[in-house]
Amino acid sequence: MDPEAVAKAFVDHYYRTFDGNRAALAGLYHDASMLTFEGDKIQGAAAIVAKLTSLPFQQCAHAISTVDFQPSGPPGGMLVFVSGSLQLAGESHTLKFSQMFHLMPTPQGSFYVLNDIFRLNYA
Amino acid sequence: MDPEAVAKAFVDHYYRTFDGNRAALAGLYHDASMLTFEGDKIQGAAAIVAKLTSLPFQQCAHAISTVDFQPSGPPGGMLVFVSGSLQLAGESHTLKFSQMFHLMPTPQGSFYVLNDIFRLNYA
Repeated sequence: MDPEAVAKAFVDHYYRTFDGNRAALAGLYHDASMLTFEGDKIQGAAAIVAKLTSLPFQQCAHAISTVDFQPSGPPGGMLVFVSGSLQLAGESHTLKFSQMFHLMPTPQGSFYVLNDIFRLNYA
Repeated sequence: MDPEAVAKAFVDHYYRTFDGNRAALAGLYHDASMLTFEGDKIQGAAAIVAKLTSLPFQQCAHAISTVDFQPSGPPGGMLVFVSGSLQLAGESHTLKFSQMFHLMPTPQGSFYVLNDIFRLNYA
């Protein structure tokens, strides 16, 4: 797959999983993975998924506006930068967000998330 | 310096240079550096600075809202994620933006920008 297809497939998979079954995101993180979520720093797949599943909303729907990507070391790594909006269940307005991922290749030919930084973009 | 101080010093230096003398940003990029600016892909310090200095405004002022950072490989590298707003000369309203940098250490104990992705966050 070309890098653009990889980036878009990852983004599609990530947010579909987030919106459908957040706990299943565990498979995308490793013990060395880092998440900075609205300034909160969390490390490790288990702690990251605990954080994501404890967010104070049960249902949400992400809509993606832009996906940018660049290769980044080590070889096979990729940076993915996303902007979009987030609709929470029971809320009429959406929240804009930006998020970046540093993806690392796995021996199985897939990727895991080494770095993840998320911010809401308040208007 | 601790990583937080490095990240904040870089962000302060980067946007002060951008707002004061964009051409001087050349010193922060190398030939392998990549910029994705509103989806346009540019590689190399000279081409990146040519892009930044050709943006259709002469003066601007960045105001930073958040700075997040994480270590990222290779050792000594750092990801920096910024959100803020941008005021252009002669415009009354500001534009919100998000930007990420992948900083790499130099042998001189400083950093250069390997990856740079910039997006305006349209309301």
